[in-house]
Amino acid sequence: MQIDLNCDLGESFGHYQMGNDREVIPLITSANIACGFHAGDENVMAETIRLAKKSGVSVGAHPGFPDKQGFGRRQMDMSLEEIYNLMIYQIGAIKTFCDINKIKLNHVKPHGALYQIAVRQREVANTIATAVYHIDPELYLVGLSNSVLIEAGKAQGLKVASEVFADRRYERDGQLVSRKKAGASIEDTEEAIEQVIRMVKDGKVKAITGEIIEIKADTICVHGDGAHALEFVKEIRSRLAEVNIDIVQLGG
Amino acid sequence: MQIDLNCDLGESFGHYQMGNDREVIPLITSANIACGFHAGDENVMAETIRLAKKSGVSVGAHPGFPDKQGFGRRQMDMSLEEIYNLMIYQIGAIKTFCDINKIKLNHVKPHGALYQIAVRQREVANTIATAVYHIDPELYLVGLSNSVLIEAGKAQGLKVASEVFADRRYERDGQLVSRKKAGASIEDTEEAIEQVIRMVKDGKVKAITGEIIEIKADTICVHGDGAHALEFVKEIRSRLAEVNIDIVQLGG
Amino acid sequence: MQIDLNCDLGESFGHYQMGNDREVIPLITSANIACGFHAGDENVMAETIRLAKKSGVSVGAHPGFPDKQGFGRRQMDMSLEEIYNLMIYQIGAIKTFCDINKIKLNHVKPHGALYQIAVRQREVANTIATAVYHIDPELYLVGLSNSVLIEAGKAQGLKVASEVFADRRYERDGQLVSRKKAGASIEDTEEAIEQVIRMVKDGKVKAITGEIIEIKADTICVHGDGAHALEFVKEIRSRLAEVNIDIVQLGG
Amino acid sequence: MQIDLNCDLGESFGHYQMGNDREVIPLITSANIACGFHAGDENVMAETIRLAKKSGVSVGAHPGFPDKQGFGRRQMDMSLEEIYNLMIYQIGAIKTFCDINKIKLNHVKPHGALYQIAVRQREVANTIATAVYHIDPELYLVGLSNSVLIEAGKAQGLKVASEVFADRRYERDGQLVSRKKAGASIEDTEEAIEQVIRMVKDGKVKAITGEIIEIKADTICVHGDGAHALEFVKEIRSRLAEVNIDIVQLGG
Repeated sequence: MQIDLNCDLGESFGHYQMGNDREVIPLITSANIACGFHAGDENVMAETIRLAKKSGVSVGAHPGFPDKQGFGRRQMDMSLEEIYNLMIYQIGAIKTFCDINKIKLNHVKPHGALYQIAVRQREVANTIATAVYHIDPELYLVGLSNSVLIEAGKAQGLKVASEVFADRRYERDGQLVSRKKAGASIEDTEEAIEQVIRMVKDGKVKAITGEIIEIKADTICVHGDGAHALEFVKEIRSRLAEVNIDIVQLGG
Repeated sequence: MQIDLNCDLGESFGHYQMGNDREVIPLITSANIACGFHAGDENVMAETIRLAKKSGVSVGAHPGFPDKQGFGRRQMDMSLEEIYNLMIYQIGAIKTFCDINKIKLNHVKPHGALYQIAVRQREVANTIATAVYHIDPELYLVGLSNSVLIEAGKAQGLKVASEVFADRRYERDGQLVSRKKAGASIEDTEEAIEQVIRMVKDGKVKAITGEIIEIKADTICVHGDGAHALEFVKEIRSRLAEVNIDIVQLGG
Repeated sequence: MQIDLNCDLGESFGHYQMGNDREVIPLITSANIACGFHAGDENVMAETIRLAKKSGVSVGAHPGFPDKQGFGRRQMDMSLEEIYNLMIYQIGAIKTFCDINKIKLNHVKPHGALYQIAVRQREVANTIATAVYHIDPELYLVGLSNSVLIEAGKAQGLKVASEVFADRRYERDGQLVSRKKAGASIEDTEEAIEQVIRMVKDGKVKAITGEIIEIKADTICVHGDGAHALEFVKEIRSRLAEVNIDIVQLGG
Repeated sequence: MQIDLNCDLGESFGHYQMGNDREVIPLITSANIACGFHAGDENVMAETIRLAKKSGVSVGAHPGFPDKQGFGRRQMDMSLEEIYNLMIYQIGAIKTFCDINKIKLNHVKPHGALYQIAVRQREVANTIATAVYHIDPELYLVGLSNSVLIEAGKAQGLKVASEVFADRRYERDGQLVSRKKAGASIEDTEEAIEQVIRMVKDGKVKAITGEIIEIKADTICVHGDGAHALEFVKEIRSRLAEVNIDIVQLGG
């Protein structure tokens, strides 16, 4: 039994620092690296890829909307063709840095508001899956477990990785509870850890409405911001080890 | 005897149109396509690559400084490492669009102020040559004839293409006369055409100071902006044909 | 009986030209000048204000979303506080250029997707009206006739100008027919002119569904892009003159 | 005997945090607030002005080159007209936020590479002084002590404030020792404090070459980044108090 731990990295920009990349990298197995549109830039990208390689962490592209001020979290109305090109450009840039550094680009996970529409709107999901496939049919597409993005990836012939969240609650239909609603986040560490273990071991999660729903867990999204986040990742690692779940990168 | 005709293309941005790409593409052999930093964007890039492919025109990357307002013509102080990453990111993005469109990326030519420092500063030239080589050792590096950029490309083991200008005058040392000086541009079409033919056939050009200097001409830079520019390209094509100089893409 | 003619201007950016500002300025009475976020920049703004002043045309701010690639036409999710600050920053910048050039900033009209949400969402309308009032309570707020933006401006104590469109069709509720629907635009010049005259003289317009609805016309939005647009403005001017409607700037 | 303490603030951008504005504001008398081009944005600007007002700190504009990635520290070739407009736009925006918040904009200090050329190139200095004067003749222009920027401000009829640095060494001609040279910075706190006190009390500083040169000290530039910087500001305050130098904002 195994699981991947993924984390958003390479989000610094110019003189602006974000996250604790150096501290969190040794704790994870997959790095989602920002591609310069919503965060990151070519220098940060180069540095982060080198860091990931040094730690043996798998590298993925984390493309987003072109909106640094909004950190890619503000939805922007774009046509499917625009979204396709947005993906190709950003993934193409990071894949080239990977090639030069002789490390494989292993996965793609859309960021922020782009992720939100990709897991909800089938046409966006299909567009993203097509773009990823065109770049490299061997790439993993990472998306919310049970979402249309996972379906789109499979339909396209891609390897997919169903993502689950330790510290978020789920709706009955498998969507995340919106952050605008009460109870969206799990504040209690123990409850979050138990949710993770149950998702990984049993393929189930308790929805906010009480039902037990099925969920596939290939990769857990963790965060590196702040001391608490790092402690939480360490706790997850230790607890997963106790129940004999190996932490292994996608395809590893 | 043969020569390549190159032109800067794909410089439109969002709703902003620049140049007459559709009109000039059939008249040239190599397209230098903007990469989204000084001009262009991912949608324009995709469209321009398709246009070039349709017309059988060779595609090149035209990377520049990250300054759309200044169109990449304002020099920016950057470290060599920043310049290296700037090149990798932009060339990587366009190369990926080429791969997807099943057309070869054939050359790289720096744009604007980046070109100006690349042909004058040896360390910048070396950095650019290294970046191009790392992307693909088969790429042509296009630079000012007689410049350190050409030397750097050769030293790196790249194929190089010496660029000449029909409508610009040369200093005794082979540099272009600065646009800030009188006489920088050749206004008379006939004089420009004769300069081109002499450069291509005899490998010589008359400097603004009167000396005849040696110059290698692998590719001529032409412009597509405005009716006059298009007429001029047509005139060059017709006159080159008269003297039995074939217009052929780099490596063609 | 009088009407204002407004046109979006100052939309060029760096080396990118947009519109025929010099040709259209003598034909209009109010210039909506881009403020550097969705279009324009500080140099274009300075130049456009001088042009407007020279022609005796009234100057207004035309703030938009921070998205040059999308020309401010892609809706971006922003909080009301973000929208307030977006307005203050952009209007503040242009007002300062007006002060220095000793010309009054006379009106504010939101641009593109910001206009679309401002005329539909009451809270956005209120936020914009408040921002405009805070800048200068004497400013005109220009918005779609019958919309919540006009109501918000009045409630705030601002002077308002109800905008009508010559070449767009209206829904029964006074909203513009979406460009995504058939029949959104009036292609026939004569029909467009007649619609304008009826709106100005009678305060009525025929909705796409056939009903005659009331509409207030203080200012007509015209376009300067392309030869046809300029011809159309000239035709409107001439026909309004025939029916004794004066073309006069807001408050003029 | 009195001195002003100024600090660069409002440099956060979107989700990117920079500096410890809340901690340093109570320790200074003048805030140089970023204007959204090299750092900051409209939301950060609004927030920082409110913070400064709350603490009774004087507000100034800190305009810079349009280069967030380079944090305004990369020189960009710009014409004098472009620099003029760059100043007007940025100062205009922040002045408007000040007006709305009923706090006076008290000074202007160029940032980074713009500061560097302003204190070295007379024409740039004159352009900046003119722009500041056009915005408001009552503004203080802050610049390097002994520099052409101070001269330009005086010639323009502006109030000027000669800026000195506690932790930097000076050349014989009064310029700062370039950061690229050894000995540019004073690492020893005691030495830095003594340099400050001597500059303020005696109007003298010891150049790196050993000569005692004259220097005028109206305002000391301090930094808020990091615990050490805050400690250093506290130490300066305490030591200035001991020698009966009051810390008072410009014009206060």
